Amino acid sequence: MELTQMTLTALPGIPLVRPGDDLATLILQGLERGGLHLQDGDILVVAQKIVSKAEGRAVRLADVTPSEKARELAATLGKDPRHVQVILDETKEIVRLKPGTIIVEERLGLICANAGVDRSNVAPAGEEEVLCLPLDPDASARRIREGLRAATGREVGVIICDSHNRPWRNGVIGVAIGVAGIVPVEDWRGRRDLFGYTLHVTTVGVADMVASAATLLMGQADEGRPVILVRGAPHTRGDGTHWDCLRPREEDLFR
Amino acid sequence: MELTQMTLTALPGIPLVRPGDDLATLILQGLERGGLHLQDGDILVVAQKIVSKAEGRAVRLADVTPSEKARELAATLGKDPRHVQVILDETKEIVRLKPGTIIVEERLGLICANAGVDRSNVAPAGEEEVLCLPLDPDASARRIREGLRAATGREVGVIICDSHNRPWRNGVIGVAIGVAGIVPVEDWRGRRDLFGYTLHVTTVGVADMVASAATLLMGQADEGRPVILVRGAPHTRGDGTHWDCLRPREEDLFR
Repeated sequence: MELTQMTLTALPGIPLVRPGDDLATLILQGLERGGLHLQDGDILVVAQKIVSKAEGRAVRLADVTPSEKARELAATLGKDPRHVQVILDETKEIVRLKPGTIIVEERLGLICANAGVDRSNVAPAGEEEVLCLPLDPDASARRIREGLRAATGREVGVIICDSHNRPWRNGVIGVAIGVAGIVPVEDWRGRRDLFGYTLHVTTVGVADMVASAATLLMGQADEGRPVILVRGAPHTRGDGTHWDCLRPREEDLFR
Repeated sequence: MELTQMTLTALPGIPLVRPGDDLATLILQGLERGGLHLQDGDILVVAQKIVSKAEGRAVRLADVTPSEKARELAATLGKDPRHVQVILDETKEIVRLKPGTIIVEERLGLICANAGVDRSNVAPAGEEEVLCLPLDPDASARRIREGLRAATGREVGVIICDSHNRPWRNGVIGVAIGVAGIVPVEDWRGRRDLFGYTLHVTTVGVADMVASAATLLMGQADEGRPVILVRGAPHTRGDGTHWDCLRPREEDLFR
């Protein structure tokens, strides 16, 4: 019997990524190390952190001069004022602020804590760096996709994922902050179910569900598994972008 | 080389579920049909709809008399007043209301549209039924878990999943509305990363990420794949409940 299956495999032995590294090459080496062969329709999910590192998005705090506003916010947040300055540099609008927590709409339209600027997993503690999101994660995903296609001839999807908190539920989950080669949100309006009802479900967050599945397998405590090969994930190929994942401002009931 | 993998398999041939059906039995039959054998540490993800159906949570609209309030809201929402009455019966508090949309905290503490009361996939269109969430989805999950253990001797986790919209992102994703045998949210505070940083990540939504992975494989348009066997999902066995997934009211910045 043919079973409907989806398989996620962590690429083994991905090394610590350094600025300038070519991620498609590292992914191809990881595939080879694992004895894995790409197939058309596979999706590669890549942790934001290694994309940011490869693209040189780490900022040395010693190079940052915090503004007056950053100093004031830092006192509320209990963070280093230089870290807060980098957060503000990546921020379009502060959405919520309370002691210890800053939630913003950042440059890419993502509503998240700290504008995605992270202090963990970046560099030896002595160096005091923070890591910003990639400048254009869709472009990062496209570059990886194109590198893989050039080397293998396979048509795969690529998702850059990050971990986000949510307003009403505990625990971070994976989200897609960059995509290439797939339709990240599928519109099922008008489809009919078994009994002929029109579905009330409007759209399905395909890329985010793939990102969550992969994020779970990545773990969070180290960088040992920053790339996941996903095979058998129901999805549609296409030229989507992460902007498709963002609810339009005029439909936002909770800002 | 031993690869880190997670595999999701849809149990084949699960029939349309009727009130009174024993889900553990249907799951065991599905496993057998697929030539699948449970292992300790597997997680079964079960669609809320079949749990609700088995537990007789369908409500015939012909049996519902809408209140004045339900009639008023129905005009705003563009829904059948009897459907709105059932939503209100399941609601603790209305969180947002606008033409076409009602978001509530329902009986189980979930913040979601329509209190999870769905009109699709329930019954032949002529009968006009709606389907409420299970009365106690954690108990439903425990019953399935115990039924599977009694039959196989295996210690598995069970997640009852539903699909939710989100405030700032397009597309529904899977969430865990009932759990048994697992810790649904893991606390990683204090863990250190490769460079000795204490992780900023506080907690990880393990059950919700498993639910999303499975929801993707289930699809939404029919009931052909309402049970997914998940093998290799990183998680911790334990006596969690879905209440662990809910952010405490006092930490809610967005109600």
